[in-house]
Amino acid sequence: MHYRFADRLSHAPKSFLNELFRVSADPSIISFAGGLPSSALIDTDGIRTATYQVMEDDPSIALQYTTTDGYLPLREFIAGRYRSRLGIPATAEEIQIVNGSQQCLDLFAKIFLNKGDHVGIERPGYLGAIEAFSLYEPIIDTVPLEDDGPDMTVFERLIHRSPEKFFYGIPNSQNPSGRTYSQEKRRAIAEIMEETDTVFYEDDAFGELFFDNRPRLPVKRYIPDQAVLSGSFSKTIAPGMRIGWIYAPSGILTQFNIVKQAADLHSNFFCQKILHRYLITHDLDEHIRKIVEVYSRKCRLMCDLLDDQLPQLSHTTPQGGMFLMATLPQGLSSGTVFEAGIKRGVAVLPGLPFYIDGGGTDTIRMNFSTASEEQIHEGMDRLARVITDL
Amino acid sequence: MHYRFADRLSHAPKSFLNELFRVSADPSIISFAGGLPSSALIDTDGIRTATYQVMEDDPSIALQYTTTDGYLPLREFIAGRYRSRLGIPATAEEIQIVNGSQQCLDLFAKIFLNKGDHVGIERPGYLGAIEAFSLYEPIIDTVPLEDDGPDMTVFERLIHRSPEKFFYGIPNSQNPSGRTYSQEKRRAIAEIMEETDTVFYEDDAFGELFFDNRPRLPVKRYIPDQAVLSGSFSKTIAPGMRIGWIYAPSGILTQFNIVKQAADLHSNFFCQKILHRYLITHDLDEHIRKIVEVYSRKCRLMCDLLDDQLPQLSHTTPQGGMFLMATLPQGLSSGTVFEAGIKRGVAVLPGLPFYIDGGGTDTIRMNFSTASEEQIHEGMDRLARVITDL
Repeated sequence: MHYRFADRLSHAPKSFLNELFRVSADPSIISFAGGLPSSALIDTDGIRTATYQVMEDDPSIALQYTTTDGYLPLREFIAGRYRSRLGIPATAEEIQIVNGSQQCLDLFAKIFLNKGDHVGIERPGYLGAIEAFSLYEPIIDTVPLEDDGPDMTVFERLIHRSPEKFFYGIPNSQNPSGRTYSQEKRRAIAEIMEETDTVFYEDDAFGELFFDNRPRLPVKRYIPDQAVLSGSFSKTIAPGMRIGWIYAPSGILTQFNIVKQAADLHSNFFCQKILHRYLITHDLDEHIRKIVEVYSRKCRLMCDLLDDQLPQLSHTTPQGGMFLMATLPQGLSSGTVFEAGIKRGVAVLPGLPFYIDGGGTDTIRMNFSTASEEQIHEGMDRLARVITDL
Repeated sequence: MHYRFADRLSHAPKSFLNELFRVSADPSIISFAGGLPSSALIDTDGIRTATYQVMEDDPSIALQYTTTDGYLPLREFIAGRYRSRLGIPATAEEIQIVNGSQQCLDLFAKIFLNKGDHVGIERPGYLGAIEAFSLYEPIIDTVPLEDDGPDMTVFERLIHRSPEKFFYGIPNSQNPSGRTYSQEKRRAIAEIMEETDTVFYEDDAFGELFFDNRPRLPVKRYIPDQAVLSGSFSKTIAPGMRIGWIYAPSGILTQFNIVKQAADLHSNFFCQKILHRYLITHDLDEHIRKIVEVYSRKCRLMCDLLDDQLPQLSHTTPQGGMFLMATLPQGLSSGTVFEAGIKRGVAVLPGLPFYIDGGGTDTIRMNFSTASEEQIHEGMDRLARVITDL
């Protein structure tokens, strides 16, 4: 049988994500390659209580179909948190619930991109976004990411000269680099974009996880009608529920709602209710402080061990999030390090898939949220031996 | 701010689904317009027990990320049920979990349809499919649906002359018509398609809900490599969990898995585990018999009331499922009946959105799963007055 698939499949990059899950499943391998939040920091007791309350209260409503936009009290909670945390006048009507940040990537590309349209991303860029966008067959332009945000010369040239439908970035603790945009660059981005019809798509999966517990103001603050923010409970509460959201101006949200409905009617209602119950009966800030304390310590440990044991590598120094990026000594390829690492029981993620131009072969992404501190010690020992031997 | 949306949005049909949810929410209106399974038949006690067991056993796994294909034991259960119920040699490797049947529609269209490609559907056709497919900008061809399945002359001409990428149908208790394909037509469809590269996409949301409790053999039985089956727990267990699946040959499933991952990484893992726990600790057949008993009785009641009180209407006589379709007396439009019905406290769904050619203006879809028998009596009284007055 010959299947006549759509052309878009030939644009799909080879995915590493499933391979990563398989590596993560091998207990003899210490993995810095994945991107899981720490299982130990999922508040299973709190979620259990919230679940039981929902199951006692109105299970047949929670288990029934609902509207596409999502559970209103949950959307009100999310909007309220934008107001109190960032001082942004968000309302529930501007929030649509989706299946984690990833679905936002797919649906946002779907409402904006014709085949051949231009879209801008960071270099390196988030793999999940590259995978989602590619299926709409756009031309993807990249802007180098510096320690404090995009290279503004390249960014300005791109936004002014190219007909970008939108620019996608992760200003807070970017995946894969761990970098955070400075406030100056955020303002500059807003100023440059304001003169154009290009929308800024601000993926904020990690904004709650700054090690100093201080929020950073999003670009959307400066250009509210021209920017959307996406968020997720995957890094703060529980990824398995697949609940995230988009916060967007109504002109965009109306279209987004249409494609969300066509995509899967609505997100899991049962988990929306559980999450909401959890959020109104627990102290989210307190829970996040616990997560941040652990991630911050692990990040510092990993950076210190890199500096001590592998001074020949340079690396980013994250202000938050779950990842850092290291650059290998000249002549060493990340693919070689990955292969040799697996044999020695340590996995790192080659940077290659984050560079759509085939670059980044000397970079690796390292995750510090999943492994325990003991495992970080042991894994870094193994990695140091691997790299020294090579 | 001017948003430069993708062309595909201009192809999106105006959706009635959210309007329907709003009508359903008004307690003074008896709604035959929606498509909800009966909330009273959701086994909340059983699901509560299963939920508690998952929360006791391994909550931090259930709440963590997982692989895209879905929870293996759940996929094994689904495959096993195909083997025992239909005698089809299905394996877990041929099953991918999705967010209800609706996501299957989106992702299947995504892997097959380039802009301008041809796709075949039934006339009337399922609205959710029309919405999902339209966003990929295909040319949609229709085949009239008769009481025992597609008009085979038109079907054969379409499949042989047109380059259809796939034909989408609901052979079991179709939405909106309530019709079921005869076994002869299923075999004939397989024979016609076998000579082509066109795939048969068999949406089986209602196959478990035949009033005689006898399964019908799917077209996929005859052309296993050329057909996919989609299924869902929304009509048998709980729609709010958004868990369905596609059962497809590996050549298709590999591509499907790529777009599923790009769409939202994986479906809600917590609910996959709850569902699986529920399924292995409860008698699904027994539960389905209860649902079928109720739906069968309500369907008969609605048909009898239609015959008694509105003999000027003709209607289909479903063998299962949740819907029937009625044709209004000449000169009466479904839009008029809808408007007048709302004022009198009864909602029916105009057939218009199920006909992409603007036809069907004299048809209405009537749901018999949501309303109670009392409500069906009262609602039919109201409807009879509305139509008699008009």
